[in-house]
Amino acid sequence: MNYFTESLHLHDQLHGKLSVQPKMHIKTKTDLALAYTPGVAAPCLEIQKNPKLGYHLTGRGNSIAVITDGSAVLGLGDIGPEAAMPVMEGKCLLFKEFADIDAIPLCIRTKDVTAFTETVALLAGNFAGINLEDISAPRCFEIEKILKEKCDIPVFHDDQHGTAVVVLAALINACRLTGKILSAQKVVICGAGAAGIAIMKLLQKAGIHHIVMCDIGGILHPDCTNLNPATLEAANMTNPCGLQGSLSDALKNADVFIGVSAPDLLNEEMVRSMNPDPFIFALANPCPEIMPDIAKKAGAAIVGTGRSDFPNQINNLLAFPGIFRGTLNARACDITDEMKLAASHALADLITSDQLCASCILPSPLDVRVAPAVAHAVEMAAGQNNSKRPG
Amino acid sequence: MNYFTESLHLHDQLHGKLSVQPKMHIKTKTDLALAYTPGVAAPCLEIQKNPKLGYHLTGRGNSIAVITDGSAVLGLGDIGPEAAMPVMEGKCLLFKEFADIDAIPLCIRTKDVTAFTETVALLAGNFAGINLEDISAPRCFEIEKILKEKCDIPVFHDDQHGTAVVVLAALINACRLTGKILSAQKVVICGAGAAGIAIMKLLQKAGIHHIVMCDIGGILHPDCTNLNPATLEAANMTNPCGLQGSLSDALKNADVFIGVSAPDLLNEEMVRSMNPDPFIFALANPCPEIMPDIAKKAGAAIVGTGRSDFPNQINNLLAFPGIFRGTLNARACDITDEMKLAASHALADLITSDQLCASCILPSPLDVRVAPAVAHAVEMAAGQNNSKRPG
Repeated sequence: MNYFTESLHLHDQLHGKLSVQPKMHIKTKTDLALAYTPGVAAPCLEIQKNPKLGYHLTGRGNSIAVITDGSAVLGLGDIGPEAAMPVMEGKCLLFKEFADIDAIPLCIRTKDVTAFTETVALLAGNFAGINLEDISAPRCFEIEKILKEKCDIPVFHDDQHGTAVVVLAALINACRLTGKILSAQKVVICGAGAAGIAIMKLLQKAGIHHIVMCDIGGILHPDCTNLNPATLEAANMTNPCGLQGSLSDALKNADVFIGVSAPDLLNEEMVRSMNPDPFIFALANPCPEIMPDIAKKAGAAIVGTGRSDFPNQINNLLAFPGIFRGTLNARACDITDEMKLAASHALADLITSDQLCASCILPSPLDVRVAPAVAHAVEMAAGQNNSKRPG
Repeated sequence: MNYFTESLHLHDQLHGKLSVQPKMHIKTKTDLALAYTPGVAAPCLEIQKNPKLGYHLTGRGNSIAVITDGSAVLGLGDIGPEAAMPVMEGKCLLFKEFADIDAIPLCIRTKDVTAFTETVALLAGNFAGINLEDISAPRCFEIEKILKEKCDIPVFHDDQHGTAVVVLAALINACRLTGKILSAQKVVICGAGAAGIAIMKLLQKAGIHHIVMCDIGGILHPDCTNLNPATLEAANMTNPCGLQGSLSDALKNADVFIGVSAPDLLNEEMVRSMNPDPFIFALANPCPEIMPDIAKKAGAAIVGTGRSDFPNQINNLLAFPGIFRGTLNARACDITDEMKLAASHALADLITSDQLCASCILPSPLDVRVAPAVAHAVEMAAGQNNSKRPG
């Protein structure tokens, strides 16, 4: 099947993948009087007295917005807000299908950080959470930071944190399978964009301290020129031995390669230079940093990619529906590191000891058990940490 | 039935009156590959090449936003954006039930005209139209004007134009029933807010030139102090005889009273001072400017109110679903005066000569024939006038 031709045909038939559906019908004067005037004044006045009641008396408590500026859509890059809509609808569809969340796709016609964040902040009262999507780095870091300050609801950039949660889950189970100690792993992350930096931060929260990051200019080091605020911060947080040089230099005696970069950046020789039985997570899509068979041949103990046609698909779909479901269930005002770590562990725990093997370190993204398990763990973790609750 | 208690109970049970529903399901890897990555890249790239294709390949062509700042909600006033949500959901529900339009409620957390309009303009790429709702006058006029300039999609403030369309329809049929000539009617409009001014402008477009407007300070006249830009413009457009004074003064020898103001402003004596067999449209809700029995007793030939428990309910629900349905069908980039006039005539024409009587000048707002008839007329009128089409 040619996915591109078929997908275009499907989109042309459906005219969008979502619709708005009524939870009640308007057939009689009484229906109208209850759903609209005059009766609707009653819930309005209750919410005016106590805005938190909006979470119960309207759809707000089960609604999130999936918001982009269209600046970094899939592997397509800056295709603009209108062209990003099929992806945003797809994301909202997945939120509904896997977590029964009413997600609204919103593509915003600006790449100006201030205009973007002001717009999103003014919309926050409609939703119980905001999923930022496909926003280019380093703007995505600033946008998320500003919105977390401005909004009274959780703000989550999935390209950062969803990816990080699933990578950590994969790493937990890779260690579990091979008997290695998670916190002792020497990790090299290739790619210092949204995903790479978020992975680094979450792995540190999980206790991994030996991390070296590389971008197109080589190993991130505070002395590098051309660092932006986000990569400078990353340089300062990583590379404990002060390495300088290329990806090849970083990989010598490393235990784990995590690629969120570009095709074919990793070769057999580089894998052979790593410590014995390394883990290779080559997540560039659709062409990974190294093909699994080559990585295996070079000695990799476990290989994961972003693709569904190879074992160990490391796909955000394993994380975002459950993370938001748990967050909404808890009425959490933030998605904390503890909640993300809980999501990673819940995801890893779905693979039983019987199932765990080099070609099965993660559940399938289509496994319907995933979102409820992640949601439960996230909700529990939220309960322990959230002091203020918006609803 | 106590509508307020029952409505609160209903809202508490439903947790919102709308949900997002998928048009397809994600059960297999193929589903995922077509709805999302990698296949979704194909519709994205098509839209990037030609943004108009977004109207077909996403939900945009059937989507509108129902947007408020919560500043003038029903008769409740400035209750704020969160508290306005039950009304906006109700409006979206009516759009779906009567016109199969996917309407998204958005309450915006600012009353600053610039911030509000910039926010809405940045969202315009998601929708095929914008229905502004419950925004206080005179800000609503400025907001609509700015947005019509900034947006490439139709912008329609229903409290203005929806009301005007239905009032004109009522007046057309009142004249038809009594044999009076529409353009010869001397009309007094009591209330110079969003609805009053829009009614005046549409009646003028329909050929009625003798209109006097009154607000709380009496007859609008260019010499009045305390006029805002909107009421000054209205004063300059109306009152051809240069009347000054009170509502009582305005009504002497008038043919039509249209009230969009406050309870009990019209009394029997004032009706008696009008020309014989006047039309009284007393639309203040829930308590009209005069009760129908009193108006009838004072000589009114035809009385209409906003209420469902009296004959001749003049309710926007007769207009907005069909107006937007016709606009979306035509892919119109604006809702023009011609389209509004066509809507009024289509609405009036739904009452046959057999049905037409003093207690039946308009169809019921629940009559399912209304929206399709209005939509057809609006679509035809749009086709004659729209040069640029956004989709």
